[in-house]
Amino acid sequence: MWGGRFQEGPDAIMEAINASIGFDRRMARQDIEGSRAHAAMLAATGIVSDKDAEAIREGLLTVLSEIEAGTFQFSTALEDIHMNVEARLTELIGAPAGRLHTARSRNDQVALDFRMWVRDQADAAVDALPRLIAALVDQAEAGADWVMPGFTHLQTAQPVTWGHHMLAYAEMFHRDLGRFRDARARMNECPLGTAALAGTSFPIDREMTAKALGFDRPAANSLDAVSDRDFALEFLSAASICAMHLSRLAEELVIWSSAQFRFVRLSDRWSTGSSIMPQKRNPDAAELLRAKLGRILGANVALFTVMKGLPLTYSKDMQEDKEQVFDAADSLMLALAAMTGMVSDMAPQREALEAAASSGFSTATDLADWLVSEADLPFREAHHVTGALVAKAEARGCDLPDLSLEEMQDAHPAITEGVFDVLGVHNSVASRTSYGGTAPDNVRSQVKRWREVLP
Amino acid sequence: MWGGRFQEGPDAIMEAINASIGFDRRMARQDIEGSRAHAAMLAATGIVSDKDAEAIREGLLTVLSEIEAGTFQFSTALEDIHMNVEARLTELIGAPAGRLHTARSRNDQVALDFRMWVRDQADAAVDALPRLIAALVDQAEAGADWVMPGFTHLQTAQPVTWGHHMLAYAEMFHRDLGRFRDARARMNECPLGTAALAGTSFPIDREMTAKALGFDRPAANSLDAVSDRDFALEFLSAASICAMHLSRLAEELVIWSSAQFRFVRLSDRWSTGSSIMPQKRNPDAAELLRAKLGRILGANVALFTVMKGLPLTYSKDMQEDKEQVFDAADSLMLALAAMTGMVSDMAPQREALEAAASSGFSTATDLADWLVSEADLPFREAHHVTGALVAKAEARGCDLPDLSLEEMQDAHPAITEGVFDVLGVHNSVASRTSYGGTAPDNVRSQVKRWREVLP
Amino acid sequence: MWGGRFQEGPDAIMEAINASIGFDRRMARQDIEGSRAHAAMLAATGIVSDKDAEAIREGLLTVLSEIEAGTFQFSTALEDIHMNVEARLTELIGAPAGRLHTARSRNDQVALDFRMWVRDQADAAVDALPRLIAALVDQAEAGADWVMPGFTHLQTAQPVTWGHHMLAYAEMFHRDLGRFRDARARMNECPLGTAALAGTSFPIDREMTAKALGFDRPAANSLDAVSDRDFALEFLSAASICAMHLSRLAEELVIWSSAQFRFVRLSDRWSTGSSIMPQKRNPDAAELLRAKLGRILGANVALFTVMKGLPLTYSKDMQEDKEQVFDAADSLMLALAAMTGMVSDMAPQREALEAAASSGFSTATDLADWLVSEADLPFREAHHVTGALVAKAEARGCDLPDLSLEEMQDAHPAITEGVFDVLGVHNSVASRTSYGGTAPDNVRSQVKRWREVLP
Amino acid sequence: MWGGRFQEGPDAIMEAINASIGFDRRMARQDIEGSRAHAAMLAATGIVSDKDAEAIREGLLTVLSEIEAGTFQFSTALEDIHMNVEARLTELIGAPAGRLHTARSRNDQVALDFRMWVRDQADAAVDALPRLIAALVDQAEAGADWVMPGFTHLQTAQPVTWGHHMLAYAEMFHRDLGRFRDARARMNECPLGTAALAGTSFPIDREMTAKALGFDRPAANSLDAVSDRDFALEFLSAASICAMHLSRLAEELVIWSSAQFRFVRLSDRWSTGSSIMPQKRNPDAAELLRAKLGRILGANVALFTVMKGLPLTYSKDMQEDKEQVFDAADSLMLALAAMTGMVSDMAPQREALEAAASSGFSTATDLADWLVSEADLPFREAHHVTGALVAKAEARGCDLPDLSLEEMQDAHPAITEGVFDVLGVHNSVASRTSYGGTAPDNVRSQVKRWREVLP
Repeated sequence: MWGGRFQEGPDAIMEAINASIGFDRRMARQDIEGSRAHAAMLAATGIVSDKDAEAIREGLLTVLSEIEAGTFQFSTALEDIHMNVEARLTELIGAPAGRLHTARSRNDQVALDFRMWVRDQADAAVDALPRLIAALVDQAEAGADWVMPGFTHLQTAQPVTWGHHMLAYAEMFHRDLGRFRDARARMNECPLGTAALAGTSFPIDREMTAKALGFDRPAANSLDAVSDRDFALEFLSAASICAMHLSRLAEELVIWSSAQFRFVRLSDRWSTGSSIMPQKRNPDAAELLRAKLGRILGANVALFTVMKGLPLTYSKDMQEDKEQVFDAADSLMLALAAMTGMVSDMAPQREALEAAASSGFSTATDLADWLVSEADLPFREAHHVTGALVAKAEARGCDLPDLSLEEMQDAHPAITEGVFDVLGVHNSVASRTSYGGTAPDNVRSQVKRWREVLP
Repeated sequence: MWGGRFQEGPDAIMEAINASIGFDRRMARQDIEGSRAHAAMLAATGIVSDKDAEAIREGLLTVLSEIEAGTFQFSTALEDIHMNVEARLTELIGAPAGRLHTARSRNDQVALDFRMWVRDQADAAVDALPRLIAALVDQAEAGADWVMPGFTHLQTAQPVTWGHHMLAYAEMFHRDLGRFRDARARMNECPLGTAALAGTSFPIDREMTAKALGFDRPAANSLDAVSDRDFALEFLSAASICAMHLSRLAEELVIWSSAQFRFVRLSDRWSTGSSIMPQKRNPDAAELLRAKLGRILGANVALFTVMKGLPLTYSKDMQEDKEQVFDAADSLMLALAAMTGMVSDMAPQREALEAAASSGFSTATDLADWLVSEADLPFREAHHVTGALVAKAEARGCDLPDLSLEEMQDAHPAITEGVFDVLGVHNSVASRTSYGGTAPDNVRSQVKRWREVLP
Repeated sequence: MWGGRFQEGPDAIMEAINASIGFDRRMARQDIEGSRAHAAMLAATGIVSDKDAEAIREGLLTVLSEIEAGTFQFSTALEDIHMNVEARLTELIGAPAGRLHTARSRNDQVALDFRMWVRDQADAAVDALPRLIAALVDQAEAGADWVMPGFTHLQTAQPVTWGHHMLAYAEMFHRDLGRFRDARARMNECPLGTAALAGTSFPIDREMTAKALGFDRPAANSLDAVSDRDFALEFLSAASICAMHLSRLAEELVIWSSAQFRFVRLSDRWSTGSSIMPQKRNPDAAELLRAKLGRILGANVALFTVMKGLPLTYSKDMQEDKEQVFDAADSLMLALAAMTGMVSDMAPQREALEAAASSGFSTATDLADWLVSEADLPFREAHHVTGALVAKAEARGCDLPDLSLEEMQDAHPAITEGVFDVLGVHNSVASRTSYGGTAPDNVRSQVKRWREVLP
Repeated sequence: MWGGRFQEGPDAIMEAINASIGFDRRMARQDIEGSRAHAAMLAATGIVSDKDAEAIREGLLTVLSEIEAGTFQFSTALEDIHMNVEARLTELIGAPAGRLHTARSRNDQVALDFRMWVRDQADAAVDALPRLIAALVDQAEAGADWVMPGFTHLQTAQPVTWGHHMLAYAEMFHRDLGRFRDARARMNECPLGTAALAGTSFPIDREMTAKALGFDRPAANSLDAVSDRDFALEFLSAASICAMHLSRLAEELVIWSSAQFRFVRLSDRWSTGSSIMPQKRNPDAAELLRAKLGRILGANVALFTVMKGLPLTYSKDMQEDKEQVFDAADSLMLALAAMTGMVSDMAPQREALEAAASSGFSTATDLADWLVSEADLPFREAHHVTGALVAKAEARGCDLPDLSLEEMQDAHPAITEGVFDVLGVHNSVASRTSYGGTAPDNVRSQVKRWREVLP
């Protein structure tokens, strides 16, 4: 009657859309930790006896060990991880299990468990990002003075150093780190103790459970604590920005791996080959990482859309939060690990980089700057003279350093031999010593700073 | 070294992000169907022998039966469903298996299998939507002349009929049906035969395989056939619009189920209760359906983001397409079945609906229209008189039909006894006989039309 | 008191968020057309006098000419285009203006005007896409037999023809055309005559107004007609897919314009330069087109989010629909025109394309296929032999056609002189004659087909 | 030739997609501030003369005053705000204007101006949110002990206080405040001085310009500084979460304003009426605010999509950043001001709230808790007894406090007269004194805390 793919009756369909045990079992550890803290508090405040609390706490450890050992029998009829754990606890210890739910509700547990799970992911990101930054810093140190083209519009603009380019990404991932830390700090308020939604008349001690579970403080409003999914959205937002950075680096790796660029050689580990074209090295991992923004941004949009316009407090819509965050977090952690591996393993091709940097009149800006600072031309006139010299070089089929001093002076008499000091790509990058500039010495200073900052 | 959650080495991480067998096994049936058609064509064109083709085709049936029986051993090392099937085929039939891949590539298979899978989902939607429409039409027929408030801004505006409200959703889901049909027709071109990307020099017969697999024609450009994911995006777009409709109906069910509205009573099947508040009937299924737009729109955004800016032809990014579509299609099909069940089971509360429709001066517009058509007032003046009468009724604490004829005539002398014919809610809805209007007779005509349109 | 940027009081803030005249004035033409059709119908059905209807219709023409001439004074206090037009009409013709709103509501007008505006945009897309396809077909014809690398993963895989690559995009944009046509057909039902939401008791003729305004039929359910924004979402979905195609082609143009690729030279018109680096040709237009997917997809997400969970019928949320669609439509139309211009103007660099196609063992697949079809090797063995020969060539620093017959025969004795026929890139592409394959003759056939299909 | 809506030639189309002066003129103040700081630094470091710098700085003030006075002539041919300002400066002061661009590029200016603009918006949000929180706190104080239903699934669950409900939103908006503050702190690094992308050989003082412009420090990597749009994405993410909160409160206001709920009466200022139904009070402002999440989330998705996969450093795609952020920031600021006004003006309907809270067995949980704490029943048994009593009351058509002690004791003999102390809604809320609970005293404590926290 319900047709289509569902031979089974409405009960089966309802179960299929309603049960969450298929995914929320991932929060088993958090659920049991939360329940153990709650039981200890119930005993400390005299709400349940020490004996019952001890039985509960021991029983929960047994349940956890069963789950970790893979011997736990999950039941869809019991809907979610909270009921599954409680039912098993009742089997194990009998009546006292019934007292665990005193001064607590399932809403409490959902809010607590998921927040702790997300907090763990923020920690995982905070742990993974410095490794990626370190890999970039290693690359930067090794190639602090290697030259490569600095692009705008994928057109050669000015020579830069490989190390400087690597450190640009270090900056990005370090901002990501800050965002995960801020999100972690903001979410670190304990919802446990909101009961169904209004708080409770039992003399519970929320400071105690908050502290036991590593929170900074208990949440100050029970209605908000039950309704809040900001922590998940802020995590997804930070993850989306981080995935955007990964997509940019991945795009560069794909382009740099092409036969036309050959700026970098990815290791076999992060590539796939072809059985008939052994020279082919498909940057599969880079492509997959480029795509992860889609997945994570999709999860972000999904949760925003779910939360839009929900009245307080809990609505079942909010059960759609977990799979999105689980998948996004898994994707992000894998992507960070894979990018760390790829960056560590990759071999920049020094000659190809330098050859590309040395073509395309990449030091035209240096010439113009020389005319301003050494020959005292106004900026706009310096540009005009430079344009004329580039045109001359182009007509001759050479680059700027190949012009003679006479040819230079034809364009402007104030030009002297000294100009050739700025026309080579190595001279060019070495001269850009302004703070944040691409000069090899700057790169080395920044590498040193990173070494101190990183854990 | 890769840190965080990954104790294992880079190979494990690469495998984890690269292998698709964990999800693309869902396309096993499509893969085998496609390979069987390809083998038959290779024989018919003389590219392989009839004997080899027959061995291949038989062997593939064996593989399929193993998969359907759950005895097939999937291997992550073999990456995807295509390699898993081929490896097993080789075990089963030996050398001839090696000829199956003649004039074909894995790109071919990916493009074909996924398109066939999505086509099946479009068919499933086309199958499921008429059932939902039928459930709405049943409700419409039963309550063709029941009155309820027609809302704008969730404020009572005019009385309408329950049947008319139900049929508004029938219109929406019927447009969805049209979108899935159009998408299905547009995607029904067969990519098989593009080989790696350029076509092949083997004398293949693409018309034959296209026909065997139910396609209207072979795709006309091999580069496009390998690169195209329009079919998935168009499916997701149609699914998103459909999910938006579901979210609107679900929102109404949630509001209508509140103690304040009590417009409808959902069946136990689609609600959950409370162990201590037996009158509580949480509209869980409706809330979950309201949320599904998030999930499906998220998938839609994800795939758009993945596809953005990909150069031709195949990039590994595109492997991120399947899980999004699988999840969105599963969500949609479950949601359509659940909504069909909920609509069939729900009990509209006739008295509550009529009481709500009869309050709030809901027939003020009828009064104004009467003044225009019977007393020949200009529209704007009629509005003015009506406003005065509503204000008078409000001051008296009654509704419009409760005013006396004298009170009416105080406001405008042209008012006659006849005005009372339009002030009752039943009179009001009965009068709206313009095509598309809410009159019970209109509803009954539309119900009849729907009965003819539906399969 | 409201603080921040708002020195003005709440009335100013309410006006700022509430008034739509700032943007909905773009629908002036549609509004007046709709009102003129309504007035004619009111006269034809005897609801208003011919004289009044004529005055209204004439007056509206005057209003339209004032708007087109830029002399119309729009008033924010009058909130929207509908009230602005009506107020001016009243000034112009006096009392009869008050009869125009008979049997009609502002909801009616909003629904009608916006649908007509979107319909015009669908028509504009249907008009613009064939021009873009024609530009691609022109490029395909001119370079039907030019060879270039066919990429997967941005790695050279097999040689293809420039024409074939261009026609891949013709396929994509042709599917877009189909989507806009389907959307246009589906939206072409006239909402006018739903009155506030319930229909009307006036004896209106909805067939007449529907026909006058170019609709296929009146919408069948008034509640749906007022609530429906499917037409906008379907337009945005089609536009998003089209913008995704544009982003892919734009990405290729950016990469192809790099110094490393030099596959194409964009014209000055669609590039910007640098005052000091005259060789620089920044592909600005291509980059902007690559970005337009963001803008259009953003509008799509915005409208889905707005519509999520809205109960019937009209809610003010729906006023957020127009700016999104206006901006997306403007972006799409500009992007299609710009891409048409860029494609028409661009100069593919035949030598660079052929040189790239001829490197990287791009004909390895041809060799493997030759071994299967001419030397009767099983597919997998043919791959093995090919791999050995590519490795040998790589070791020697040459490509496959540079190996001697003896070297070939060392790898497999069945190889004959004939193999060299398939190793050149021109031979390779010429051999791929399967339907949809890259052979120049195929390209020419497809060009011919396109010439017949295009208007 | 480009067809469709474009009568004009390609130059007009290119100008239309390329020029940004139509929107980036909003950054005029930031542009001029940045240029003045740059000029002062150029003089301080001896790169230009004091006299030239002074002329530049004076001239720029003149330009700013022209722009603020509305007399400035913006030119589309000059593309953007940077060129417009510079051209006018040249007109005003002649040659020295040419020295302003020394050691600086347009990329520098784009990165600086936009970052300063976004920083201003973060400040505006930080300014506006406490006003909204204060309005909520005012409502909370006035109704600290008013009872209303606490909902889950829009079903009455337990009584709560109006004040507690208001303060739930205070928590949400306070987290928003934290996010804007964190975003502001993270973005507060000065990009000025990156020159085109590589830094410069001029002896600039980036600390000086950073300090002059209110930044904490100069950005440490020039490539990153030019490429970074994190600040915009983080602002949009924080704005999206804030808009989600607004959508929830707005949804509640819409539902509460319905005739069925009547929980709150919105003021005329934030509503619209009907000319014929004076009792109608359409919550237009609330609906528009509910919709703003769509707009802001759409902008967020748009910018993520634009930034996906962009190689370093500047690409023209990034010009699509500004309109999205401008529109989102405008929407957010208006929405915050409007919500502050609505909350300040709204009149909660005490009687309706209490009547709703008192029905639906809302104190069943209190009864169950009493059985646990006073009669020492295990939690699950207490639930069972409560269910029986609710069923009995429902059968009698009364609520729990209406049962007699005998009826109570029939269900369980341990029940005493004391039970009636917890069954009234006022007793219920007064008992929930756990930290974060709904008790009026808790609300008053929290109000006091908020008064101290707010500026």
